[in-house]
Amino acid sequence: MLSLSYMHLMNALSTSYVLEQVATMSILRARQFPLFLLLISTLFLASSSVNDHDQECQQSICRGIFRNSLKSRQEEDPRTEYFYCWQSCQTSEDTEECEAACRERLDGQLEKQSQKEQGGEDQDEKPTSNPNPYYFPKSTLLNRFGAEEGGYVVLNSLTRLSPFLRGRIKNYRLALFLTAPGTFVLPYHIDAESAFVVSAGKGTLTFVVKNKKESFKIEEGDVIRVPGGATTYLINHHSSEHLNLVQLIRPVNIPDLFEEFFPGGYKIRDREDYSILDDVESYYSVFSNDILEAAFNTPREQLEKALGQQRPEGMIIKASKEQLKALSKQDPSWWRKLVPWWSSEDTDLKFNLQSQKPLHSNNYGKFYEASPQEFNQLLDVNVSVVIVEINSETMMVPHYNSKATYLMMVVSGTGWFEMASPQFTLPGSEEEIEYQEDQGEQRGMYTKVSGKLSLGDVFVVPAGRPVVFVSQNNDESNNQNQNLRIVGFGINAPNNIRNFLAGQEDNIMKMMESEAKQLTFGKEMEQLLSNQKQSYFVPLSTQKSEEGRNHSSPDWLQFKTKQ
Amino acid sequence: MLSLSYMHLMNALSTSYVLEQVATMSILRARQFPLFLLLISTLFLASSSVNDHDQECQQSICRGIFRNSLKSRQEEDPRTEYFYCWQSCQTSEDTEECEAACRERLDGQLEKQSQKEQGGEDQDEKPTSNPNPYYFPKSTLLNRFGAEEGGYVVLNSLTRLSPFLRGRIKNYRLALFLTAPGTFVLPYHIDAESAFVVSAGKGTLTFVVKNKKESFKIEEGDVIRVPGGATTYLINHHSSEHLNLVQLIRPVNIPDLFEEFFPGGYKIRDREDYSILDDVESYYSVFSNDILEAAFNTPREQLEKALGQQRPEGMIIKASKEQLKALSKQDPSWWRKLVPWWSSEDTDLKFNLQSQKPLHSNNYGKFYEASPQEFNQLLDVNVSVVIVEINSETMMVPHYNSKATYLMMVVSGTGWFEMASPQFTLPGSEEEIEYQEDQGEQRGMYTKVSGKLSLGDVFVVPAGRPVVFVSQNNDESNNQNQNLRIVGFGINAPNNIRNFLAGQEDNIMKMMESEAKQLTFGKEMEQLLSNQKQSYFVPLSTQKSEEGRNHSSPDWLQFKTKQ
Amino acid sequence: MLSLSYMHLMNALSTSYVLEQVATMSILRARQFPLFLLLISTLFLASSSVNDHDQECQQSICRGIFRNSLKSRQEEDPRTEYFYCWQSCQTSEDTEECEAACRERLDGQLEKQSQKEQGGEDQDEKPTSNPNPYYFPKSTLLNRFGAEEGGYVVLNSLTRLSPFLRGRIKNYRLALFLTAPGTFVLPYHIDAESAFVVSAGKGTLTFVVKNKKESFKIEEGDVIRVPGGATTYLINHHSSEHLNLVQLIRPVNIPDLFEEFFPGGYKIRDREDYSILDDVESYYSVFSNDILEAAFNTPREQLEKALGQQRPEGMIIKASKEQLKALSKQDPSWWRKLVPWWSSEDTDLKFNLQSQKPLHSNNYGKFYEASPQEFNQLLDVNVSVVIVEINSETMMVPHYNSKATYLMMVVSGTGWFEMASPQFTLPGSEEEIEYQEDQGEQRGMYTKVSGKLSLGDVFVVPAGRPVVFVSQNNDESNNQNQNLRIVGFGINAPNNIRNFLAGQEDNIMKMMESEAKQLTFGKEMEQLLSNQKQSYFVPLSTQKSEEGRNHSSPDWLQFKTKQ
Repeated sequence: MLSLSYMHLMNALSTSYVLEQVATMSILRARQFPLFLLLISTLFLASSSVNDHDQECQQSICRGIFRNSLKSRQEEDPRTEYFYCWQSCQTSEDTEECEAACRERLDGQLEKQSQKEQGGEDQDEKPTSNPNPYYFPKSTLLNRFGAEEGGYVVLNSLTRLSPFLRGRIKNYRLALFLTAPGTFVLPYHIDAESAFVVSAGKGTLTFVVKNKKESFKIEEGDVIRVPGGATTYLINHHSSEHLNLVQLIRPVNIPDLFEEFFPGGYKIRDREDYSILDDVESYYSVFSNDILEAAFNTPREQLEKALGQQRPEGMIIKASKEQLKALSKQDPSWWRKLVPWWSSEDTDLKFNLQSQKPLHSNNYGKFYEASPQEFNQLLDVNVSVVIVEINSETMMVPHYNSKATYLMMVVSGTGWFEMASPQFTLPGSEEEIEYQEDQGEQRGMYTKVSGKLSLGDVFVVPAGRPVVFVSQNNDESNNQNQNLRIVGFGINAPNNIRNFLAGQEDNIMKMMESEAKQLTFGKEMEQLLSNQKQSYFVPLSTQKSEEGRNHSSPDWLQFKTKQ
Repeated sequence: MLSLSYMHLMNALSTSYVLEQVATMSILRARQFPLFLLLISTLFLASSSVNDHDQECQQSICRGIFRNSLKSRQEEDPRTEYFYCWQSCQTSEDTEECEAACRERLDGQLEKQSQKEQGGEDQDEKPTSNPNPYYFPKSTLLNRFGAEEGGYVVLNSLTRLSPFLRGRIKNYRLALFLTAPGTFVLPYHIDAESAFVVSAGKGTLTFVVKNKKESFKIEEGDVIRVPGGATTYLINHHSSEHLNLVQLIRPVNIPDLFEEFFPGGYKIRDREDYSILDDVESYYSVFSNDILEAAFNTPREQLEKALGQQRPEGMIIKASKEQLKALSKQDPSWWRKLVPWWSSEDTDLKFNLQSQKPLHSNNYGKFYEASPQEFNQLLDVNVSVVIVEINSETMMVPHYNSKATYLMMVVSGTGWFEMASPQFTLPGSEEEIEYQEDQGEQRGMYTKVSGKLSLGDVFVVPAGRPVVFVSQNNDESNNQNQNLRIVGFGINAPNNIRNFLAGQEDNIMKMMESEAKQLTFGKEMEQLLSNQKQSYFVPLSTQKSEEGRNHSSPDWLQFKTKQ
Repeated sequence: MLSLSYMHLMNALSTSYVLEQVATMSILRARQFPLFLLLISTLFLASSSVNDHDQECQQSICRGIFRNSLKSRQEEDPRTEYFYCWQSCQTSEDTEECEAACRERLDGQLEKQSQKEQGGEDQDEKPTSNPNPYYFPKSTLLNRFGAEEGGYVVLNSLTRLSPFLRGRIKNYRLALFLTAPGTFVLPYHIDAESAFVVSAGKGTLTFVVKNKKESFKIEEGDVIRVPGGATTYLINHHSSEHLNLVQLIRPVNIPDLFEEFFPGGYKIRDREDYSILDDVESYYSVFSNDILEAAFNTPREQLEKALGQQRPEGMIIKASKEQLKALSKQDPSWWRKLVPWWSSEDTDLKFNLQSQKPLHSNNYGKFYEASPQEFNQLLDVNVSVVIVEINSETMMVPHYNSKATYLMMVVSGTGWFEMASPQFTLPGSEEEIEYQEDQGEQRGMYTKVSGKLSLGDVFVVPAGRPVVFVSQNNDESNNQNQNLRIVGFGINAPNNIRNFLAGQEDNIMKMMESEAKQLTFGKEMEQLLSNQKQSYFVPLSTQKSEEGRNHSSPDWLQFKTKQ
C-alpha cells in the first residue's frame, strides 16, 4: 500500500480530455520510467493497492475515452489537472523533469483556454453534457484548497452537474478531506451545516463555538457532526498514515454554495500560476484599520507586526511533534461524566457507525445505516449516514429506496453499479429536458445507468430507482482490501424503506398474492422467486468463473438513445 | 347514466384547436350518426348525464374557441387527442369508419407537427400563454398511460402550466385514475408520496412495502394514503361500474416530476403510432444477465422463459372473475385488533370523508374537509382533503382562505367559479411577468378570474383570493346528479381559516366596529350586511328565474387587459 | 425634530441618477429658499435632526454618485421619485412652484422612459448591477401605496435586488409603514404571514379573523404578529406624531410576492399621472351582479348605492376624533383574564422587545433579540426579531452568526457597517455568477462590503460573514437621538450562535489552545487578544480624536475587483 507505479500516476494524467494526443504521448513516455516502489504522497492514490497496473491501465484508457465525451464545465480547469500532475511527480525518480512536463502541459492548456476566451474558432464546439447524470467519477471533484500536505476536494453543485438532480438533493454538497501525516488544518468556519465520516486514519478534530471548545479523537468509521458556523481545526498526528474524511455539507445561505472563512492565513495575491498552493487570507484583513485598532484595543503597528508572522502555506500545514501532542489531547471526559448536564447535547456529536449492528448483513456483505432518529445530531441536516461493505465478487441485490435519495462515495475497493432509470436522452438544452419530461410516450420504459467504482467516485441513487452494487475482484492475492466500501448520505431518510426485489427475505415480490404475481409476471414466476436462498448480498455466479471475467468489462454506459 | 350520445363524443373531438376546420367537419358528420343508446367505454364521459347534448354542444363550441387561443405546449400532442377519439369510436355504431377518421386526422396532425419541427414557416407563430392562469379544463390533462381498460391522466406540472403558480403548490401534481369494470391495474411504484380520493365506484387497492401487504376495500368518498415508493395494485371487481380515483402526488426526487416503475410488463418498442396502448416495461429488464442470474439464482434460459409470458396490454388489464375474487379479499382485521401494536400506524391509512361531519353546511350544500391534524397520514404530504357538494342553482358565498391554496377537480355536476385576483395581463415572457410584479402602480386593482366547471376540470384557488363556486342546473328532470361535486386538496392547510365575506355566520365584515365599517364602506353598508340570513351556501336569486338563464352564459374569462 | 431644512429635502431629490444635471440644478435653486422652520409632512425625513444640512449635503452627493452607478430596475420608476418630490413641496414656502418643478421633471423622465421602451438608441446601455449586493439604501424602497396621509414602502424581492441572495432569505420581504397623525388605514389582508415592529409613535392595530376581532394598543418597541390572511386595520390617534412600523412579510403563495386585498375602496382608473395617490379598489367589485345580489340578498340598486359612497382617497385616510376614539378602545382584558382559555393562543401576539433583558449589552450599547422559542408567534414565520442600539462613536465588535441571516433596517441615527464577504466581482450575467461560483482559485479571499447607514437603509448580514456596526456622531449638541438604532429579522434563527471575534467575553479566538493560536496567527497574537477589556460594544479609539474625523468618510465600497 505504500508503493505505487509511476505508470499508474501517468495513466491518471492520460485521462485528460483536453489534449488527448499529449496524454497518449505521456503514456508512452511513462513506460520508460521505472514502474514500482515509489513512495506515496499522492492523495487519491494513497489507498490503492499494488500490482494492479495493467488492469488500471485499461481502466483509465476506458475512462479517458469516457471523459473525452464528458467535457462538463467544472473539468475544464487545467490547474486542477496540474495539481495532480505535480503531486504525482513527487513520487517520480526524476521529480524535476516530471514537473517541467506538467508545467509545459499547463502552459499549453492555459494558452489554449485564453484563446478560447478571446472568442477563437472553437466557439461552435458546444460542450456536450455528462451522458450519465447520476455518476461523477473522481476526476469531476473540484480542487478547493490544494496544499502540499493534503487537500480539500469538493463535488460541484449537483444542479450544475446534472439536469436531473433538481430536487432536495441540490441543497447538499459532498467533499473529501485528505491530510498527510503530522499536519494541522487551519481553523475555519463555513456558512453550512456539515457532518464528517472518517474513511481512513486517525486524528483529532476540534471546534470552537461562542465560549466552548469541543475536541474529538477520530478514527475510521466515526461520524462527527459539526454545527454550522463552528470554527473547526483538525490534526493528523499519525506519523505515516493519511487521515481522510468524507464530508456532507448543507449550506445555510445559498442552497448549493458555501464559503470557507479563515481567521488566520496569508495570501500571496500574485503567486505564479504553477503553484499548487491555495493560500488562505485572514478575514480580519478586510476591516478598516480604525476598526481593528478599536476592536483589539491595540495600536496599528503592534497589530501589523503580530499578523505579519503568518506564512503562506495553504490550508494544511506541517506541525511539530510537540504541537501535535498538545493538540491531540482530548478534553478529559471523566469529569463530564460526573457532570453530565454540562453539555449533554454534545455527547452524541460523534459515534462510530461500524461498531453498530448492521441493518442488512450476511456472510457476503454488511450495510450500516444511522438514521437521524438514532443519531439525533443528524436530524437538522436531515440525512442518514451509510457505510456499505461488499465482499469481492459479490453484489447487493436489486432494491429501491422508497423515499430517500443516496449520495454515495467509494472509499475503497472497486466494482460497479447498475441502476434502472426512466429513459432519458442526452438533453442539449433546458428546453429539451422539459420536452422530454412532458412526453407521455416514453413513460414506462427504462434505461440502464451504470458506472465503474473506485476510490473517490461519486454516484447518486434517487428514490424509487432499482439498483445493484457489485464488488469486483481486482486482486486475488489480497483478501482484506478487496471489499468494496462505500460511504453514503441518505437525503430525506426519515421513514425510508429499502424494498428488495430479489432474495429470500424482505423481497416485496414474494409478498404479492399468487393471482397478482400471475397477472403481473405470468405463471412461472412464483416458483422462480424461491430459488434464491440468500438475502441482501449474494455472490456472483460461481459456476461460470470463466465467464465471470466479463464482469470486469460489461458494456459500460450503454444508453438506449432515441433516434 | 349508461348511455350517451355519440354527438356528445364527437363534440369532445371538436374541441381540438389544431385543425379547427376538420373539427367542425366532424361535428357535421357526427350529426349523421344515431345519437343515443350507445354503451359507454369512454372514461371522462362515463358519469355525464343523458339529454344534455344541445347544451353541451354550445359549451364545447365555446370551449373550442377558448382552446383555440390556448395552445399551451402540453396540449400539442395529437396522440392524446387520438386516444380520446379512438375511445369515442368504441361506442359508435360504425366503429371502423370512426377509427379511420381518427387516424386520418392524427396523420394530418403528425405530419404538420413534423414540418414544424423541421423548422417550417410557422416558427414566428409564438404560442400564446394560457389566458387564465388558474383554470385548467379537462382537455389540458395529459394522457399518461392509456389502455383499453382505462387510463391514467395527469395534470402537467403547475409551474409549466402557469407563470403564476410558482409557490409551494408547484410541488404537487394532480391525476385521475379511471378503470373499467373487471380490471387489474399492474403493480407499480412511483418516486412520490400520494393520496387517492375515490370519486366513483368500488374496488380493492393493495400495496406492498418491505415485508408487509396492505389491502383496502374502497368506495366513493374514501381517502387512501399510499406511502411513497409502495408497490401498489388495484382491482375494479364491479361488473358494470367504473372505479375512478382522484390522486394527489408529491414527488420526492424532483419537485414537479414523478415516474412510474413497473416490476412486470412488456413493451413493444416499435408499435405503430395509432395504438392507444402505452405499454409498460419491467424494470428488471435493464439489469445485466449476470446480475439477474445471480439475483434470482436461476439460469438465464429459465428466467427468459418465465418473463417471456408477459403480454403487451398496457397498465390496466382484464382479469378473470376468479382472480378478481381472490384479490378483493381484504386482510382479515379481527386478529389485527387482537394485536393492535402490529401495525397501529396503518390503521388510519384510509377513512371516508363523506361520513364525517361537514365543516360548513346548510340545506343548500356541504363542505367536508379532513385536515392533516385529523387524518395523521396526510401530515407528511401536508395537505387537507376537501369534498364540496353544492345543490343545483346554489352557490358557496364569497370567501377566502387565510393560508391554504386549493387545487380542485370537478367530479360531477356543472357550474362555474368566479375569483378576484390581483390584476395581471397576459405575459409574453418571463421578463414581462417580472415587470408586472415589480410595478407598484397596479396594486390594489383586481381582475375577475372565472371558468366553467364540469367533470375533469381543474382550478386553483390561491390563498387570499376571494372566490365563489356556483352550481348550475343543467337538467331539471334529474335531481341527484345535478349537484356540483368538487374534490380538492389544500396545500399549506394547517391553521388555515376560511373567512366568509357574506352570509349570516362567520362573516368577517360583520366583526368590524361600526366606525371601521363606515370609514371603509360608507354609512349604509352596516344595515345591508344583515340582509342575508343564510350562511355558507345560498340559493341563486329565485325571483328572477327568467334572468337566471343568464347564469349559464356569463361573459366568461373577461379580463381587463392593459392597452 | 419638528423642523427641517428645505435644503435637506432638495438634496434628497438630488440623489436622482436619471437626470443628474437637473438634480444638480435643483440643489443650486434650492439654496435660494429659506432653510428652516417648515412643518413636516414628509415621511422618511420626519425623524431626522436639525442642523445637519452640511454633512447631509456631502452625504447625499456621495450617494448621488453611488446611485448613479446603481441603476437597478426597480429604481427606474420616476413616479416614486415624483412622490417624494411632491411630498417635499408640502413643506416648502412656495408649494406651487415646487410642485411645478417636480412635474416638469417627471414629464421629462416619463418621456425619456417611453422613448426607451420604443426601442431607442439606449438599448446598448446595459444596466449595471448593484455593486454591493448586501446594501439597499432607502432610495431602493418601492412606493407601494402612496397617500397624502402616509405611505407604505416595500423593499423589492431580494432575489431581484441581488444575485447573491438566493437562499431562504428570498422568501421574506421587508416593508415600512408610515402614517400621519389622526389617520385610519383601510382594512386589507395580504396573502402572507407578517410581523410588525413599531419603530416610532403610538396607535391601535386591529385584525379580524373568521368570527374574532383582536385589537392591540401599540407603541415603540412593540412586536405584533399578524396571522396570514387576517383582515387588518390601523389607527394613528396621536395628534402630532407619526406612527411608523417596520414589517416583515413571508408570502404564502409565491415565495417573494404578496398582494393586498381591500374589501372597501374606490379606484379612479384614469387618474392623471401626477397623483401621488394609489387608490384601492374593493375586491367585491369583480363579482357578477347576480352573485353579489345573491350573496348579500339585496337588490342591485341598493348595493350600488351603498358601495357608491366610497371616496377615492388611497389606503390611508383622515379620520375624525370621534372615530379615532372609538377605534382606539382596546378589547377589555379583565374578562379575558377571567376566561383565560378563550383566546389563550392570542395572548402572546404582542410583546415589547425593549422591555426585555438585552442579550448582549454594556455601557456602550444594547442588543435585544426575541427568538422564536421565546415568542412563540414568531415560530411559524421562523424568525427572531432584533433591536440594536449603539451609542454614538461606538461599534459592535466584529462577530459572525453561525446559522442566521439578518435582514436589517436602520430606524434612527447614522453610522456604517463593514462586512467580510467572499470575494466577488460584479457579475454581468447569470453565467458570470455561476462561473465565479465555480472558480476554486478565488477561495479563501475576502472583500470588504460596507455602506453608510441612516433611517430607511436596509442591509443583509448573511450567516458566517464577520461584520461590525459603527455608530457615527453626527451632532455633538444632542445626545439622545444620536444612538444608531437598527431593527432586524433573523432568518433561520433557531439555534443561531453569535460568535464574537474580539472583546473580552465570548471571543472564540480566546478559546483555542495556545498551540492552535500559534499555528494559526503566530506567537504574538495570544498576548494581543487580552488587550481589549470590553465586550460586545467598544468605543472608537479616543486617543486619536483628530484622526477620528476620518470615520465619517472611509473609502466606501472599495471592492477588490478582478482585472
